[in-house]
Amino acid sequence: MTDTLRDLATQLDQFAQERDWQQFHSPKNLASALVVETGELLEHFQWLTEAQSRELAQEKRDAVGAEIADVLLYLIQLANALGIDPVAAAQAKLKLNALKYPVDRARGSSKKYDEL
Amino acid sequence: MTDTLRDLATQLDQFAQERDWQQFHSPKNLASALVVETGELLEHFQWLTEAQSRELAQEKRDAVGAEIADVLLYLIQLANALGIDPVAAAQAKLKLNALKYPVDRARGSSKKYDEL
Amino acid sequence: MTDTLRDLATQLDQFAQERDWQQFHSPKNLASALVVETGELLEHFQWLTEAQSRELAQEKRDAVGAEIADVLLYLIQLANALGIDPVAAAQAKLKLNALKYPVDRARGSSKKYDEL
Amino acid sequence: MTDTLRDLATQLDQFAQERDWQQFHSPKNLASALVVETGELLEHFQWLTEAQSRELAQEKRDAVGAEIADVLLYLIQLANALGIDPVAAAQAKLKLNALKYPVDRARGSSKKYDEL
Repeated sequence: MTDTLRDLATQLDQFAQERDWQQFHSPKNLASALVVETGELLEHFQWLTEAQSRELAQEKRDAVGAEIADVLLYLIQLANALGIDPVAAAQAKLKLNALKYPVDRARGSSKKYDEL
Repeated sequence: MTDTLRDLATQLDQFAQERDWQQFHSPKNLASALVVETGELLEHFQWLTEAQSRELAQEKRDAVGAEIADVLLYLIQLANALGIDPVAAAQAKLKLNALKYPVDRARGSSKKYDEL
Repeated sequence: MTDTLRDLATQLDQFAQERDWQQFHSPKNLASALVVETGELLEHFQWLTEAQSRELAQEKRDAVGAEIADVLLYLIQLANALGIDPVAAAQAKLKLNALKYPVDRARGSSKKYDEL
Repeated sequence: MTDTLRDLATQLDQFAQERDWQQFHSPKNLASALVVETGELLEHFQWLTEAQSRELAQEKRDAVGAEIADVLLYLIQLANALGIDPVAAAQAKLKLNALKYPVDRARGSSKKYDEL
């Protein structure tokens, strides 16, 4: 994890400890909370056209930013609870995706790799 | 954003450009993809007890790590598409949460702040 | 509940009992499974334009139908586990929505009632 | 579809038409709205133990019922928009599940069929 994410993880640990919230923070529950937050994020976009979603007004953009924050905070807590480094996992996944989606076959296609 | 997340964002940009995928990557679609990935993450936990979720076998833990990676990668792409710094947003949210959940009232309670 | 949904609920009960699955089917777990299935449903649409989503090929439509089935089956099981009649709840909600979204104010707007 | 679900579909159609909301109700958007509602449903359970989720207080149960209603209403609208009969799809899925999860192999196991 980067120093910054590690720092966020430490702050979140302390935040939960001070409130005696570790009892609620099983990986199962954190994964649920993560999904719930992404639902709140998606809610901002559900009736927008794609074009509208590319041109959010500032107020809406701030609201979306607050939801992105919630998602990141639960993701860090979940990764931390499981002893997983999310950045290392992301870098490994990027390498895998390069193999699964070769440029020549994936260009301009939204198909999954098993359909390419 | 930290240098590491910025670096991931740059790699993801290049990855999408090489495959002509920017056409699919509206914020609306990225938010949908983000939710879909968190659903795949939650699937690993849906029938586990909380206790079991705290003691994942290595194979399961690796599979969960790959889903955490997918969530982080879409979150970075969404934030980047909107010009939002997810780490700055998370730090701002942490400060807000400290106000919303004062230690003395929130201790040991899973209630939302408007129910405390 | 309608006779048909009641019949599905009875079949699902029996299905779970024969497999000794009631231990897994807490409302909490069923709600998670429900979200996971809607994620799988959304996956079919995530990279489509809205126009494309209105004109699915038959194969895709069948795959979406199978996901709709999964969502309905978990929804019935969740409602049944809680002693809630989903159809009565839906009819009550429709009446509420008619009050929240008066025709003259809601026409052509996707805003939520608290923003109208 | 049963007469009751058909009746709900007709009411929802009329509701959307009166408000000129069909423009927003592409299958893609309805699938997003469906996920968002299941997230709101899951939120009620995210910090509960499984045991607590089996014993909801009446007020909480009513709130969950309202979310179940929202999920059913969007599910009906999505199925209707695609010309899919959700009850027929559910009955077909139940038959498939009986083949995928034979009693003797699935008993007491939460594993997916490809892991049994």
